[in-house]
Amino acid sequence: MIRTHEAGTLRKEHAGQKVTLAGWVARRRDHGGVVFIDLRDASGSAQVVFREEDHAHDLRAEYCVKVTGEVRHRPAGNDNPDLPTGEIEVVASEVEVLSESAPLPFPIEGGSGVSEEARLKYRYLDIRRQHIADALRIRSQATYLANEVMRERGFVYVETPSLTRSTPEGARDFLVPVRLQPGSWYALPQSPQLFKQLLMVSGLERYYQLARCFRDEDLRADRQPEFTQIDIEMSFVDQDDVIELGEALIGRIWKETLGYELPTPLPRMTYAEAMARYGSDKPDLRFGVELTDLTDYFSGTSFRVFQAPYVGAVVMPGGGSQTRKELDAWQEWAKSRGARGLAYVLVQEDGTLGGPVAKNLSETELAGLAGKTGAKPGDAIFFAAGARAASRDLLGAARLEIGRRCDLIDESQWSFLWIVDAPMFEEDGEGGWTPVHHPFTSPKPEWADTFQDKPGEALAYAYDMVCNGMEIGGGSIRIHRAEMQQRVFDVLGISKGEAESKFGWLLEAFKYGPPPHGGIAYGWDRVCMLLAGGESIRDVIAFPKTASGYDPLSGAPTPISPEQRKEAGVDATPKADKGESDKPEPAPAQ
Amino acid sequence: MIRTHEAGTLRKEHAGQKVTLAGWVARRRDHGGVVFIDLRDASGSAQVVFREEDHAHDLRAEYCVKVTGEVRHRPAGNDNPDLPTGEIEVVASEVEVLSESAPLPFPIEGGSGVSEEARLKYRYLDIRRQHIADALRIRSQATYLANEVMRERGFVYVETPSLTRSTPEGARDFLVPVRLQPGSWYALPQSPQLFKQLLMVSGLERYYQLARCFRDEDLRADRQPEFTQIDIEMSFVDQDDVIELGEALIGRIWKETLGYELPTPLPRMTYAEAMARYGSDKPDLRFGVELTDLTDYFSGTSFRVFQAPYVGAVVMPGGGSQTRKELDAWQEWAKSRGARGLAYVLVQEDGTLGGPVAKNLSETELAGLAGKTGAKPGDAIFFAAGARAASRDLLGAARLEIGRRCDLIDESQWSFLWIVDAPMFEEDGEGGWTPVHHPFTSPKPEWADTFQDKPGEALAYAYDMVCNGMEIGGGSIRIHRAEMQQRVFDVLGISKGEAESKFGWLLEAFKYGPPPHGGIAYGWDRVCMLLAGGESIRDVIAFPKTASGYDPLSGAPTPISPEQRKEAGVDATPKADKGESDKPEPAPAQ
Repeated sequence: MIRTHEAGTLRKEHAGQKVTLAGWVARRRDHGGVVFIDLRDASGSAQVVFREEDHAHDLRAEYCVKVTGEVRHRPAGNDNPDLPTGEIEVVASEVEVLSESAPLPFPIEGGSGVSEEARLKYRYLDIRRQHIADALRIRSQATYLANEVMRERGFVYVETPSLTRSTPEGARDFLVPVRLQPGSWYALPQSPQLFKQLLMVSGLERYYQLARCFRDEDLRADRQPEFTQIDIEMSFVDQDDVIELGEALIGRIWKETLGYELPTPLPRMTYAEAMARYGSDKPDLRFGVELTDLTDYFSGTSFRVFQAPYVGAVVMPGGGSQTRKELDAWQEWAKSRGARGLAYVLVQEDGTLGGPVAKNLSETELAGLAGKTGAKPGDAIFFAAGARAASRDLLGAARLEIGRRCDLIDESQWSFLWIVDAPMFEEDGEGGWTPVHHPFTSPKPEWADTFQDKPGEALAYAYDMVCNGMEIGGGSIRIHRAEMQQRVFDVLGISKGEAESKFGWLLEAFKYGPPPHGGIAYGWDRVCMLLAGGESIRDVIAFPKTASGYDPLSGAPTPISPEQRKEAGVDATPKADKGESDKPEPAPAQ
Repeated sequence: MIRTHEAGTLRKEHAGQKVTLAGWVARRRDHGGVVFIDLRDASGSAQVVFREEDHAHDLRAEYCVKVTGEVRHRPAGNDNPDLPTGEIEVVASEVEVLSESAPLPFPIEGGSGVSEEARLKYRYLDIRRQHIADALRIRSQATYLANEVMRERGFVYVETPSLTRSTPEGARDFLVPVRLQPGSWYALPQSPQLFKQLLMVSGLERYYQLARCFRDEDLRADRQPEFTQIDIEMSFVDQDDVIELGEALIGRIWKETLGYELPTPLPRMTYAEAMARYGSDKPDLRFGVELTDLTDYFSGTSFRVFQAPYVGAVVMPGGGSQTRKELDAWQEWAKSRGARGLAYVLVQEDGTLGGPVAKNLSETELAGLAGKTGAKPGDAIFFAAGARAASRDLLGAARLEIGRRCDLIDESQWSFLWIVDAPMFEEDGEGGWTPVHHPFTSPKPEWADTFQDKPGEALAYAYDMVCNGMEIGGGSIRIHRAEMQQRVFDVLGISKGEAESKFGWLLEAFKYGPPPHGGIAYGWDRVCMLLAGGESIRDVIAFPKTASGYDPLSGAPTPISPEQRKEAGVDATPKADKGESDKPEPAPAQ
């Protein structure tokens, strides 16, 4: 090692020792011939004193330096109790510039307000900033802890392929041309789902992987084209087993990184209850403000807008005193979400109801409304009426917006829960059904024989872990019987040919004694973002891309040259008979 | 859990207990009304007895079953001491077929001689075989141990991108079209080299990752288009620090998985010595048979073939009695390696030298040859003459072949060593120089100022760990000074423009106080292959591909449809001005 000590580890016990440090010039203060420098390395920082300016006159911000000197107590009154090394300083006798730094595009210390584009372009400088490095370190710590839990429980870490089979139906697959088989392409996996199920067929019983996944998705605010999941699958288990494991995993991580004791077993809420009470399948329970179902209440209403399959409301505490402009902003907000608007009633301080909707309601309807919704004088009541799912969705979003605008969310709190009993299917808008999870999700045992008769009611044996209003993990017990799988395909209108093309190799495997199995996958970027207190998954990704997949650091993606294109076989016509000519090679001769 | 116990864990202490097992029907034996079944799960197997054939008559090989019954001692004389569960059996009272199995393409138990194509096509059945599953488990165990070592030493696990920048010079890069930026492409990384060096610039100091790498290589026997490396980088270190870490890592793994104590510090051999003595930069030291340099010996020879810049020999013990056919086979062997043949001399039992070459040598040359090469009566001496590198390479390969044919290699032994002091550059055959490692490799300190003056002699600050004749890890101390890097580019004839295009973003980063740093990467597939005693890296990869990148299981790669092609933007013309229109998105609104 170039150094003898790490700067952040020096204490007054080291006083009198000669040490060599190496790190970066974080701050420099000149005081009449004496120069003070904060020397920063990964362990922290220490104050270095140069008695003569000569030695230090070259040292500028973020120079990488090696300093030898003697540790001493700081002169009386100069201690810095905020700093672990605040009682000592190093009196430099030798200094060597290991490398210089050009003027910085933004300051490392204390630089807030730097644009994200600049931060990502100079990510290596961004990571020198304490809170960014800390976020990466907490992610690393969480990864180590996850490994520890899975190891204790006998899971086999298996790496599944990143170069997999593309299927014509695989929208959002990244494709990869193969030079050795011109005209043929791999796909990058959106998840190791099929492979982990194959590993269960193989009898490994407990599989685990920190898996890189890829999705060529549409633009979304906090998307990344590649992301990581903690991917888990187990054989001979029931829902409770997977849930117990998930709680052990997340529990260990939260306890060891944040000192937070997960209150296990976590509460479980059915999907139906979550939708009814919070208008969301990932409710944030750090605050109340529940939805009220007013469909029955308004069943006899003469107000045309409320003559709908569903009428619901959510109360905004104190919202009755909003200005016209604020109330208009809510309308804009609703429209930006695709709704026609957000009907509201304002509860006056005297208990009377105001606002345009109130005029359309009957005396009786008005009289009971505050009581029914729990609104108090000074509150606003927002309504949604129409199709049940869309209306609840709007109210659920309004609830979150209320939580934010009214500052109802206690950011220091953790709200973990499981959402269970999700529907197996939802309508696809074209008279058919689409799976809520994926087509291998098992029905709950009580729906095993009958799900096909009432697809809209059948419940899946699936579970999502929700934290602070975000889904951080999701999984299910899978179907392992061909006969049941066929019934699911029938409901979904997946033909034999389509099933064969999409999942043929999994279905083939399922002919050979597949065990009952189930699993879960945690969105690792989200988990780490929560741990690190970040606002975006980009905060916990070393080299993230923008929402459109652009990397400001390297400039990726880029056009390719005609030579690259030719070399990669992008425009080649594939050979017809690939399998035959492509037998495995023998083991190497040397 | 569907079961109460794992089959392989049952012992006589369980006698009298009612247990429920779940697993696969491994073997079935019918004995007049009584049926014995070996029930296998991931923990091992247990014998299950069905008293009446009714219960068992449906159970065929590899059915997945759940069995409830009572554990009892096996009747006297029926113990199987080879089996951990050999003292007990389970008398079945209930059995449930969890899933049936179609007739198997090959037997799970004891099936040797199955073609590799069949094994890979039905890999999930292949993995049910004990030794295949064991290979995956030992890989998992090694991964856990690697995590443990790196965690103890404070390394930060950082995931680097898989979707990176393609460069026109990046031959063998897999390319990925980007739907959101039609006409633009990512490249999959051949290693995280640039990113890990950026992480050092970022001040993280200790980086580590189980990194997936990709290389669209030419056909080679034991290649995979994707492979894994344990990727490590450290700041403020010297060669000894990285070597010490590497030994700690490999030492822990070999000790915990195989009980083998690595004799640290491992021997270090210079590249020059390895080439001279073994004709290889990855010598297998499990046997002797060293090369003899005869260049001086034959400096005055009249034999034209030996009037060469280099003449060397290697002795084949007992090779003097080879038949004409065997000796001819050596010629073919040499030709298949691109040599013109393999000159030889046979040492007769009476000490005289025979074979065609002997006739061309002088009395004096003949007289001293056996002594000089260490050949004994009955041995053969093989020669190579010509350019030094090519000749040594041929002799080194002949040495390995001798070791194999003469059964000189003790397969129970481990031979670990470091190869150090490799040359920085080698001739590119066109009058220029090419880096032996990569262009960021630092010269040894004594060559820091002068390497450009004698590129052919300059030594790199690089180190490879070799095990049993295979390079399992390699790394170097990197260049961190722009001025030195420029001198390397000058030697390599890399223009400013080319450097900019290839490594511009790394060079830019190096303007901002890069620390001295170095690292190492272990070829994880090879390491695990050695641990598992496999013959190919395919043995330790759950779902490997063939040498041409074909996956017999899924059929990947495949042609893509015109719709996929259009969707992926394969044929689109890239927009000229990408950077501008592609600013990072703001943090998500919800």
